[in-house]
Amino acid sequence: MNPIITGFAASPDRGRGFARDVRVRWALEEVCQPYDVRLLSFNEMKQPAHFAIQPFGQIPTFEHDGVALFETAAIVLHIGRNWPGLLPGDPAARARTESWVVSATATVEPLVAEREAAGFLEADRDWFAERIAVLDQRLATRLDAVARALDGRDWLLGEFGAADLMLVDVIRRLVGKPPLAPYPMLAEYAARAEARPAFARAFAAQREIFLQSDG
Amino acid sequence: MNPIITGFAASPDRGRGFARDVRVRWALEEVCQPYDVRLLSFNEMKQPAHFAIQPFGQIPTFEHDGVALFETAAIVLHIGRNWPGLLPGDPAARARTESWVVSATATVEPLVAEREAAGFLEADRDWFAERIAVLDQRLATRLDAVARALDGRDWLLGEFGAADLMLVDVIRRLVGKPPLAPYPMLAEYAARAEARPAFARAFAAQREIFLQSDG
Repeated sequence: MNPIITGFAASPDRGRGFARDVRVRWALEEVCQPYDVRLLSFNEMKQPAHFAIQPFGQIPTFEHDGVALFETAAIVLHIGRNWPGLLPGDPAARARTESWVVSATATVEPLVAEREAAGFLEADRDWFAERIAVLDQRLATRLDAVARALDGRDWLLGEFGAADLMLVDVIRRLVGKPPLAPYPMLAEYAARAEARPAFARAFAAQREIFLQSDG
Repeated sequence: MNPIITGFAASPDRGRGFARDVRVRWALEEVCQPYDVRLLSFNEMKQPAHFAIQPFGQIPTFEHDGVALFETAAIVLHIGRNWPGLLPGDPAARARTESWVVSATATVEPLVAEREAAGFLEADRDWFAERIAVLDQRLATRLDAVARALDGRDWLLGEFGAADLMLVDVIRRLVGKPPLAPYPMLAEYAARAEARPAFARAFAAQREIFLQSDG
């Protein structure tokens, strides 16, 4: 049985690949593991059947071999532990990877998501610009850290792995937006990762769902 | 050699136990593993020696047996995998625990931290109250999820474990504050976990640092 993931039946980003299922698809493509997708409407996401797998009513989830996971950092680390290709074998390098993977969703993404939420919820308030300025200062400290850790190398820990996959899937949300302007090397890092065939397959797969639903 | 963790030499919360080293101390106390602490000034946290272990210049970190971790979710899961007592052995239950642990820092804590950051950075703006109202609506959807998942039980997954430790260490930041008022069962959940001897030892250890530094 293939792993089963969940995704939006109608992604709010209209197929631009910013829904969080992309990083799980990408991880599965990197390890060459075929998977099935269960698409959910917004209504289905808030029903008991989905809450039982994803308590917060979000996508994606990952079900395989009797286990069910939520949270993309947990899913990507689970894939990395069970399929070769995303996590280094050396314990010290693996611990670094685990830390970076969590930091992508716990330390960098919250400020990126906050910026997006402000755009949805507060763009019409007269204090919106002031609020974004405060937020972007905080976001810069996070981007500084990733840029400093990369330090001119292609990937955070030598070879491409789960740490890069997760951080790039957060950073690519900022491409072309003001917070990323001072960091051309982070835009290049994202472009380098997006050039991987596994990313292209993951992106195309979610895009196909949008094209079919809109057709 | 004991594990070494890092903490604030002068915690901004003045010993009230809201710095993130508490959850790592707590996990180590639950598994009865003694540990050493390296205290860092704010200046030391932003130096290359610390960036090499914690790229974002934060505390805590965890060093043991040749590995160095950052991000509390990664550290607590590492402790759970290497010492008995915090992670279930059953693969399905372990996957749920891993997911919940990540959700504490990636899905619940960001909105709690955002509320605290707003208090520091934006309390003097005339739009502060309006902003907190928007934020608390979003936070309520996260607290709803934890309350629904607990569903009257003492702990999320049967016995106390890493999932409860992480979620409670986030929820306890809200005790006595407006967002937690509609959820007395979450305040009780936090109180139940804080009554554990391991939490009391962790809390006392960080408090002692404050008392000595202030004495």
